[in-house]
Amino acid sequence: MLISELETPAVIVDLNVMERNLSRMAEYCRQHQLLLRPHTKSHKIPELAKRQIASGATGITVAKLGEAEVMLNAGITDILIAYPIVGEEKTTHLAKLAEQASISVALDSEEAARGINSAATRQGARIGVLIEMNVGFGRCGLGNENDLLTLAQTITTLPGLEFRGLMFFPGHFGVGPEQRATLRMQVNGFLERSLEIFERAGLPLSIVSGGSTPTAYESGLFHGVNEVRPGMYIFNDRNTVAIDAASLEDCALSVVVTVVSTAVSGRAIVDGGSKTFSYDRYQAGDGRGYGLVKEDTAVEVERFSEEHGHLNVERSERRYRVGDRLSIIPNHVCTTVNMHDEIYGVRGDQVETVWRVEARGKVR
Amino acid sequence: MLISELETPAVIVDLNVMERNLSRMAEYCRQHQLLLRPHTKSHKIPELAKRQIASGATGITVAKLGEAEVMLNAGITDILIAYPIVGEEKTTHLAKLAEQASISVALDSEEAARGINSAATRQGARIGVLIEMNVGFGRCGLGNENDLLTLAQTITTLPGLEFRGLMFFPGHFGVGPEQRATLRMQVNGFLERSLEIFERAGLPLSIVSGGSTPTAYESGLFHGVNEVRPGMYIFNDRNTVAIDAASLEDCALSVVVTVVSTAVSGRAIVDGGSKTFSYDRYQAGDGRGYGLVKEDTAVEVERFSEEHGHLNVERSERRYRVGDRLSIIPNHVCTTVNMHDEIYGVRGDQVETVWRVEARGKVR
Repeated sequence: MLISELETPAVIVDLNVMERNLSRMAEYCRQHQLLLRPHTKSHKIPELAKRQIASGATGITVAKLGEAEVMLNAGITDILIAYPIVGEEKTTHLAKLAEQASISVALDSEEAARGINSAATRQGARIGVLIEMNVGFGRCGLGNENDLLTLAQTITTLPGLEFRGLMFFPGHFGVGPEQRATLRMQVNGFLERSLEIFERAGLPLSIVSGGSTPTAYESGLFHGVNEVRPGMYIFNDRNTVAIDAASLEDCALSVVVTVVSTAVSGRAIVDGGSKTFSYDRYQAGDGRGYGLVKEDTAVEVERFSEEHGHLNVERSERRYRVGDRLSIIPNHVCTTVNMHDEIYGVRGDQVETVWRVEARGKVR
Repeated sequence: MLISELETPAVIVDLNVMERNLSRMAEYCRQHQLLLRPHTKSHKIPELAKRQIASGATGITVAKLGEAEVMLNAGITDILIAYPIVGEEKTTHLAKLAEQASISVALDSEEAARGINSAATRQGARIGVLIEMNVGFGRCGLGNENDLLTLAQTITTLPGLEFRGLMFFPGHFGVGPEQRATLRMQVNGFLERSLEIFERAGLPLSIVSGGSTPTAYESGLFHGVNEVRPGMYIFNDRNTVAIDAASLEDCALSVVVTVVSTAVSGRAIVDGGSKTFSYDRYQAGDGRGYGLVKEDTAVEVERFSEEHGHLNVERSERRYRVGDRLSIIPNHVCTTVNMHDEIYGVRGDQVETVWRVEARGKVR
């Protein structure tokens, strides 16, 4: 089947670009002796997780229990759930998964640790734990080394848990190179103090897990980090390019859309909106635009309705007609893929494969 | 089952509030002799579409062919697809649906009309057409009465199509009452000119379809409008309240979430983010916030990660703990429901029913 025969909106992935992205990250990790544990929330497709493992990943990262379950059923047996699992139903489910595979979770509170321990103990399972550090993003994570050590010491007393180390998410690194160097210095200070206090306490850290896609290729510069968890690098997107973590040529994923209306002057309306792309903002510059039209960079993806993409074509030399097809690189691939039950792998103008986004839409 | 036993994040609908919303809209339409054709994109659930029909709706509106198909299979036989159907696969599919039910589409171009006519003719089907007017929102629609008439006259020459009238979407009415009166005057001017030119040409308009939720309760003030297509009114949301189209007590839908981290001072992190709520902005005031925490209005839903809601709790007097449950009214119900495979109908503290969001995730 040809790409031009796909009904729109259709999410397509250029396999050549994707394969290059996978190799490059694997190679960087090999060179810097980093364990690679890709975050599969970006694709939610077991077959792609397996390709990541085949290209050198040690295991995978997921965001939810439901994702872990799908990946485990597909035969993946080393999974980090980078999310605090809270609540009895969830922890019970977690403990059951831990009977079948090596499962770790990230958390930052005694409440979460004790909840998971109870379930694990009941089930006779053992669950790995990374404690999350807040390195400046201000979402989850403890902000100083003493709190990290105190929680780790509590965890070592809980029989259902195995303390494995530390984890952080540098979600605030989407800034210019100079500012990044300053931020990295701050993170390194925190890392050094933490590693030191754990060493003095005689508590070994087998894992110090850092970097997502934005910092992945500078992971070698973070003190003590021996594992990375990039997700978006498999596809990349407009925001990844905006923060210099990829170039446009590294963007493997786009959404093919069709122009359905040109009745309003200066506008072309396409058949993909917020229910196709989600509605993530552009993280750089003036924050404008919800995607990049590959065939015509003079076009701005100005806003989304649910099923309409509003293209501003005022600065374009092209005359748009109902029925024209365009491909748009989204601001954020993870939330875009999550809107679809199926996406397509393509090579040249041929559709080579269809993947089910099997782990999307999971409640837990 | 109790609401408190649902695993989070869970989308719940207060049935008492929903039923009141349905009755009130049906009653308004009866009083003003308006046909009610609810837009089911807001829920995508056949059972709710049937309840809308049972409470007085004449038929339904959908945004996509896939939604039409789901609703048709559930026994609903009068469907407006308020979207230009473009492309051969889609028009063929449309013509097949039109063999089984009364199907209309909205469009604004000769290209779209001819494409649909070809498929209908091949299939021996007849498809109703509303021509879309651009009344100021600037998305789809023709902007003057002469263009409307020209397109209508072309449509009357196409044997597979049946010209039924005009349609508009006043998506720009989310403003204060004074500005709304001015906007309404402009729309009424365009409506008057259009009705007049069609009458002079001897082309009857059986349908003039207006109003969505924001303007529904002023539909009686639009010249010549005899049908409305509100969608959100069944649930309402933070944006509907912001533009005075509903009160907080009319918000039937919320998302139950659990606090998973309080490690960062002034923050409580909950287990619902952009993959639970989507990422629609607040349309009023300073545009801040991604939802309203029902139990504590001092809290701001400051941002979303994919699976994290970042609550700013600095101004709250409550002390948040891991495991606490909260319910959040989303900015936009339509895109929130679309993220979920199932949602719950509740009454008091009891879960009364589970609905499958059957028409979500449709490609076409």
